Amino acid sequence: MSLLIRGGEVVTADRRYRADVLCEGGVIQAIGPDMEAPAGAEILDAGGLLVMPGGIDPHTHMELPFMGTVASEDFYTGTAAGLAGGNTMIIDFVIPAPGASLLESYKTWRGWAEKAAADYSFHVAVTHWSDQVHEEMGILARDHGVNSFKHFMAYKGAIMVDDDILLRSFTRALELGAIPTVHAENGEAVAFMQKSLLAQGITGPEGHALSRPPAVEGEAAQRAITIAGLIGAPVYIVHVSTEEAASAIARARAAGQRVYGEVLPQQLVIDESVYQNKDFASAAAYVMSPPFRPKHHQKALWAGLMSGQLQTTATDHCAFCAPQKAAGKDNFTLIPNGTAGIEDRMSVLWHHGVVSGRLTPSEFVAITSTNTAKIFNIHPRKGAVEIGADADLVLWDPSSSRVISAKTHHQNIDFNIYEGMEVTGLAATTISQGKIVWHKGDLRTVKGTGRYIDRPCFPPTFEALSKLNAATKPVGVVR
Amino acid sequence: MSLLIRGGEVVTADRRYRADVLCEGGVIQAIGPDMEAPAGAEILDAGGLLVMPGGIDPHTHMELPFMGTVASEDFYTGTAAGLAGGNTMIIDFVIPAPGASLLESYKTWRGWAEKAAADYSFHVAVTHWSDQVHEEMGILARDHGVNSFKHFMAYKGAIMVDDDILLRSFTRALELGAIPTVHAENGEAVAFMQKSLLAQGITGPEGHALSRPPAVEGEAAQRAITIAGLIGAPVYIVHVSTEEAASAIARARAAGQRVYGEVLPQQLVIDESVYQNKDFASAAAYVMSPPFRPKHHQKALWAGLMSGQLQTTATDHCAFCAPQKAAGKDNFTLIPNGTAGIEDRMSVLWHHGVVSGRLTPSEFVAITSTNTAKIFNIHPRKGAVEIGADADLVLWDPSSSRVISAKTHHQNIDFNIYEGMEVTGLAATTISQGKIVWHKGDLRTVKGTGRYIDRPCFPPTFEALSKLNAATKPVGVVR
Amino acid sequence: MSLLIRGGEVVTADRRYRADVLCEGGVIQAIGPDMEAPAGAEILDAGGLLVMPGGIDPHTHMELPFMGTVASEDFYTGTAAGLAGGNTMIIDFVIPAPGASLLESYKTWRGWAEKAAADYSFHVAVTHWSDQVHEEMGILARDHGVNSFKHFMAYKGAIMVDDDILLRSFTRALELGAIPTVHAENGEAVAFMQKSLLAQGITGPEGHALSRPPAVEGEAAQRAITIAGLIGAPVYIVHVSTEEAASAIARARAAGQRVYGEVLPQQLVIDESVYQNKDFASAAAYVMSPPFRPKHHQKALWAGLMSGQLQTTATDHCAFCAPQKAAGKDNFTLIPNGTAGIEDRMSVLWHHGVVSGRLTPSEFVAITSTNTAKIFNIHPRKGAVEIGADADLVLWDPSSSRVISAKTHHQNIDFNIYEGMEVTGLAATTISQGKIVWHKGDLRTVKGTGRYIDRPCFPPTFEALSKLNAATKPVGVVR
Amino acid sequence: MSLLIRGGEVVTADRRYRADVLCEGGVIQAIGPDMEAPAGAEILDAGGLLVMPGGIDPHTHMELPFMGTVASEDFYTGTAAGLAGGNTMIIDFVIPAPGASLLESYKTWRGWAEKAAADYSFHVAVTHWSDQVHEEMGILARDHGVNSFKHFMAYKGAIMVDDDILLRSFTRALELGAIPTVHAENGEAVAFMQKSLLAQGITGPEGHALSRPPAVEGEAAQRAITIAGLIGAPVYIVHVSTEEAASAIARARAAGQRVYGEVLPQQLVIDESVYQNKDFASAAAYVMSPPFRPKHHQKALWAGLMSGQLQTTATDHCAFCAPQKAAGKDNFTLIPNGTAGIEDRMSVLWHHGVVSGRLTPSEFVAITSTNTAKIFNIHPRKGAVEIGADADLVLWDPSSSRVISAKTHHQNIDFNIYEGMEVTGLAATTISQGKIVWHKGDLRTVKGTGRYIDRPCFPPTFEALSKLNAATKPVGVVR
Repeated sequence: MSLLIRGGEVVTADRRYRADVLCEGGVIQAIGPDMEAPAGAEILDAGGLLVMPGGIDPHTHMELPFMGTVASEDFYTGTAAGLAGGNTMIIDFVIPAPGASLLESYKTWRGWAEKAAADYSFHVAVTHWSDQVHEEMGILARDHGVNSFKHFMAYKGAIMVDDDILLRSFTRALELGAIPTVHAENGEAVAFMQKSLLAQGITGPEGHALSRPPAVEGEAAQRAITIAGLIGAPVYIVHVSTEEAASAIARARAAGQRVYGEVLPQQLVIDESVYQNKDFASAAAYVMSPPFRPKHHQKALWAGLMSGQLQTTATDHCAFCAPQKAAGKDNFTLIPNGTAGIEDRMSVLWHHGVVSGRLTPSEFVAITSTNTAKIFNIHPRKGAVEIGADADLVLWDPSSSRVISAKTHHQNIDFNIYEGMEVTGLAATTISQGKIVWHKGDLRTVKGTGRYIDRPCFPPTFEALSKLNAATKPVGVVR
Repeated sequence: MSLLIRGGEVVTADRRYRADVLCEGGVIQAIGPDMEAPAGAEILDAGGLLVMPGGIDPHTHMELPFMGTVASEDFYTGTAAGLAGGNTMIIDFVIPAPGASLLESYKTWRGWAEKAAADYSFHVAVTHWSDQVHEEMGILARDHGVNSFKHFMAYKGAIMVDDDILLRSFTRALELGAIPTVHAENGEAVAFMQKSLLAQGITGPEGHALSRPPAVEGEAAQRAITIAGLIGAPVYIVHVSTEEAASAIARARAAGQRVYGEVLPQQLVIDESVYQNKDFASAAAYVMSPPFRPKHHQKALWAGLMSGQLQTTATDHCAFCAPQKAAGKDNFTLIPNGTAGIEDRMSVLWHHGVVSGRLTPSEFVAITSTNTAKIFNIHPRKGAVEIGADADLVLWDPSSSRVISAKTHHQNIDFNIYEGMEVTGLAATTISQGKIVWHKGDLRTVKGTGRYIDRPCFPPTFEALSKLNAATKPVGVVR
Repeated sequence: MSLLIRGGEVVTADRRYRADVLCEGGVIQAIGPDMEAPAGAEILDAGGLLVMPGGIDPHTHMELPFMGTVASEDFYTGTAAGLAGGNTMIIDFVIPAPGASLLESYKTWRGWAEKAAADYSFHVAVTHWSDQVHEEMGILARDHGVNSFKHFMAYKGAIMVDDDILLRSFTRALELGAIPTVHAENGEAVAFMQKSLLAQGITGPEGHALSRPPAVEGEAAQRAITIAGLIGAPVYIVHVSTEEAASAIARARAAGQRVYGEVLPQQLVIDESVYQNKDFASAAAYVMSPPFRPKHHQKALWAGLMSGQLQTTATDHCAFCAPQKAAGKDNFTLIPNGTAGIEDRMSVLWHHGVVSGRLTPSEFVAITSTNTAKIFNIHPRKGAVEIGADADLVLWDPSSSRVISAKTHHQNIDFNIYEGMEVTGLAATTISQGKIVWHKGDLRTVKGTGRYIDRPCFPPTFEALSKLNAATKPVGVVR
Repeated sequence: MSLLIRGGEVVTADRRYRADVLCEGGVIQAIGPDMEAPAGAEILDAGGLLVMPGGIDPHTHMELPFMGTVASEDFYTGTAAGLAGGNTMIIDFVIPAPGASLLESYKTWRGWAEKAAADYSFHVAVTHWSDQVHEEMGILARDHGVNSFKHFMAYKGAIMVDDDILLRSFTRALELGAIPTVHAENGEAVAFMQKSLLAQGITGPEGHALSRPPAVEGEAAQRAITIAGLIGAPVYIVHVSTEEAASAIARARAAGQRVYGEVLPQQLVIDESVYQNKDFASAAAYVMSPPFRPKHHQKALWAGLMSGQLQTTATDHCAFCAPQKAAGKDNFTLIPNGTAGIEDRMSVLWHHGVVSGRLTPSEFVAITSTNTAKIFNIHPRKGAVEIGADADLVLWDPSSSRVISAKTHHQNIDFNIYEGMEVTGLAATTISQGKIVWHKGDLRTVKGTGRYIDRPCFPPTFEALSKLNAATKPVGVVR
């Protein structure tokens, strides 16, 4: 069946123009002015709306087993909530327990994800090192569409890896045409400060932010970038939340390194004052890593997005309900780390980014889908409004407003970190694989319709990198 | 008549894919795989070639009256040489004498340009200030397709303007939806040092570089950016040649300002040692402003292009032959400033940019056409391979080589600054308005076929800027 | 007559040790433990006190004719108030009207200053350029003990000078062994914004800060530093009040330039919110240039002092009473610019610098006297506790507190910008030329006892500079 | 017996003045003009000479057992050679084997050092962690005059410590009033690259530099500084050799942290090209860590010294002769790391620092002795020309020249890294404990006359730090 989106204004990362869009067989069949509807086509009126690529959230953790519990949002509820907010794809994370097989873990996650309502893919985390890890990275890259591997520099005693593993794994990723990504926090320092704060009797959620100050992230980002530079690998820093990390990225890019940075909308608009809330549940609800920061960091993050030094936006969607958070009632280090927000991502970014004048609508598209699709090599299948692209679209209403609330959201969590925030700009209609799955408040998702999306290795930048490395070996920076 | 480009690989700023391209009526009519040739269509075999947007050179000075002489390259020979190198459009400069009417000067230049063989447009320089200038900026912007105004911070006693004029003119440009551009060198300092050097008996071309050290450019760039920031205007710095200026731009962008920088290929690959040539003619041939720089600046310029902090590449093509340069035989300040290079721009950038691994082919397209087209608001008519776009294309042969030489070039100048440089990557065929104008060494240009291209005011960024300025007034930086 | 200071702890820029200090004939005669009092010597008990060099305020404007009025504090009242606060010397400014003779102006100021109660010296401003200025700079430097010349980059239409004059005057100063100093604000931009704000109907004191945003200072500082660098001259930036200017200084120093920066204590502890006061008189009382800044700049200024990148502290003491400030009731550009604070300088810096742990007592001495004495080549006559040095000392009580108030201060002004601030650390006793002039609240100054202090040209740094310039000519930066 | 130094010009970190200096009982007894010689005093003519504090070399490794051999220079020959070059004190390193007692190791080194001819002191390295280490740090600090602890971030599998140990040890040092110091190189990265290079067949000395690129030092410096900042500790980075590390220090200081950097003269004047020498012995002679660097780093190091962001100069004197270096003939990782240079330190710094105009004579004194004495809390006993200070002096001939050569040096090594360098400026006479030990080429040292110098804990900066930490806890940076 075909769907004709009529009368809207197409907005891509490149430009903005009036055109109708015809979807057929799950892909975009035609784009043009005043198109005739094919026989039997459903016609969708997009008058006054912007027709944009659906959002891609490159950082979610659906039903993640973590810190003794399991994230409350599963692949179905999470992707459904995402669709309600205009997101048509997620890239989630396979996180093998230390010692576990990457491949087996990958299969486990693939199984969980079968219930997804929107397309999805997986980064795979390297949480330890062995010949088997080396080999399975190859299998995943070559046979399973995995072109990115994640590394945690924090969570000592659990999934943290040291510099030696970073060096080995980045080297392996480069060889495979996959991009290394890192969670940048110095885990040794965090562990030291956690212990120290607990010893001082600081046990509440405010201790969480104190134990992970901005410098801890800046240091780790700098270290990961240095390591990538030594071997000529690209590197993608997830959830950049500080001026220090943003500066480290900018410095490296200004020396010619291919470094990317991801920002979370919550970090752009919420600051560390949330941890001062005397109500444990309210403060604990904001416990995530890296934590919310002093306000001045927000300026650096916005400017990073505006200047193109930071490229993508994600949510790190990892939902834990109040009873789960309560595990850390007497010890902040036991509060499950994570916040939810996939449903509100696009609205929060539009309101604070576009309505405020920081970004153009095209820049909004770039940071919500296109840049992610390019970096992770699924462009133009995703992140584009082009003939042949997947018909994953959002019809954006740029001028309607809504008030965000846990009472009305579709996320499977009892709290909304943006509670009460009025935002202008919302998803009027979301289209996934050419089908309307969200329309004027009506969520029509179907469990299991989401597909696993292979991400081929060797994105175009790798060809350039390999030439550059051949010339400058072994340090991948301009000389 | 139509032209079918068959079997090539389309490369845009976004991506790279196999497709045929059909040109008709001067525009791109269709893009797709394995296209049928319409009846009567000419078929061009693009096997092994890349089909890219023709280059746009946003900085040329054809037949410019300057320093007592007139540039030897006229609008016909210059655009023809450009086509031979894969460039399908130039943006030249109207430079009114101080006190002269902008509008009359514009008309004079329009007259000269009628002989052009490729499309062209004009930046208009503001070289003085008066109510008439203020009014004529409006007429040019509204009625004549001028959306950029140039300001010289150097050339004291001639076309230099002071900070007060920058403030007035930038304010006016912002109001009109036009982008201010600047030649950033502190003209007071240059004049002071010229006098001082001559007084010390330094009269040769080496004095040229000594009189305009890097700091003089860095300072002026910082000043222009500050002035733009004060009133919330964007600003475009032409021919950025120093680490200092590149850093000033990066700092401003990292604070959220909309600042753009242009780089000349010659500054990326040639350094100041050329002024040490004992042969006057050889040294004088490289006299341009800003001058060639110590080698380490090249690294900063490349990294600026790689990281997206510098966006465009131009040539500042301004040809003077040896007899003209000889005017400064005894006094370097009388050597007409300018070098030629429009014909070699694309090859030099491909060889040193793409073959070296610094840039991907898509990034090459971005910096040779697309970014310029976006900034100066002629995208996607120019700088794009899209249905409806002007059929201005270059069929790029990425692996053939040639040796650059004045003996073989088509430029109307007796010297080539790249003489003897072997470059891989060349324009196999150039298509302008859907017609083949250069094919395997055969130049088929026709005088006067180039068209003046209107550039509409208010590029998309201005809407964002105006919102941001409304919020942060009057300083256009993120707070 | 001699004076023995007994039982105190001497604190210099270098160290801290217990010693008695014997003053005789206006100089320090001996320093040592447990000294015998010479016959007839007055003995001063310094138990629990720190014996430090008296403060030197290198930036005051006593009885300055400015903006249609004359500063209310004259050389007697001003130096007396300074002594009450532990300051034993000032360097004031001779500011010739544009066109006026430097030498005649100097004589005028010398005449006014004869009533001073403490030692004093003069920077001389270059407010225009001519052969006479060139010559008189030489006379002042050689015959009148003037080793510093001031330049205003702001105050357009009055005492502002342009880049050409900066180049000429810096060159002349370098030749004479004198240090150029600058008030760094882009005066063209300020004038433009003043006009613009008034046109928008913004006439109150809040317009003052809006018309001189931080970027205006940062730009000018960068420009002055660049100009100094071009000719190999040192440069001293007065009243650095912004992160931007502090960064410009640090960048230049990190490239090997000899650049100095001065900070005002009021800028370290008071922010721009004072201009929001609805009471005109209260807001106008804080009108000075550069204006008070957003709070985050304070961090940069403190860190500049802590890291040694900013070296001196001054007050820019320029007192205007409420009736004088009222001249700008309807137009902020007519409010006489200036605040008072010489009496509180040392206490404010001790409290916020030393008590807070930012500075050691020795670092306090460095930034309140020694660094100034060294830069302006009167060390160790001033700024030192050494045998042979002038007996200008302050006996500092590090632990007593006082509340600052106009009701109790000795300054001839009806307002105190620190009103109500409680500070720990105060001058118990001040000694000038070996005589007690302030003791436990008793001010014993005598009009006219202050002496003019010659400042010899060619401080030690100039020998190094001249070697460096000979090697690197003409740009005075490390290559 | 007493010694009168007559007719010289005293140069201190503060100033320069003509005075005679009388030494008695090993200390400076009097300083003044035209002094009478006490009966029986030896009179030393210092006409034309500068009387300066003897140099302090804060980084030597005499007779160090390292990499399977023992440094050829012992405490006697090494201190003697130092005296011949104008150095009157060293601070060497106690380096316990991993697991060994700090205290026992300290005693071992004390035993070795008894033969020293000049005064000495010891930093003690923390090479592992345990309760015993914690306790012995306290004993050393309180009872043995140790106020600095060293940490190696490199030398994996040997003396390297990880971030957790840095955190623990820095915390302990802060508590004890001792300053943590670090050798900043990422040892994991070095080990990885060594393996990788060897695997590629790169076995010669050129592999040494390749295995430790500048980024490896910059990263580690940033990390150590971050860790110090987290707990409010000061930190001293030994042998800063890169722009990256110098920038990291400057950034931290510009944020208010107390961070210090040490530079080696050899790194200021010799670059990495030495490793290209085809003669193994010649190339291996330069193998030290961090290695010699690309030339542009030298500019950053000089500017760091000039601007005060880097404070001290040392030699890392660690002599290995050709037969020792030959251990790495087939594997660069086995070449004992180290170069000698204590004898030439002062001359090289004077020639390239003062003669070149980069530094004043006073700044030379600051970086060769005074700053070191202050940081390590032995000022003014050392590093000063003051009454009561140790009579450790050098009579410096600023205008005589010499050619450096292994043939003539007094160092116990068969190679001189400065071989053939002509330097202006040399030690005419060196005085240790008031005795002439070097005079016009005659070395009169006596084995065992050197004394161990206690360095008291809690230098003055710690009082400020503790106040600042109390206010800002736990992160020691300005907010």
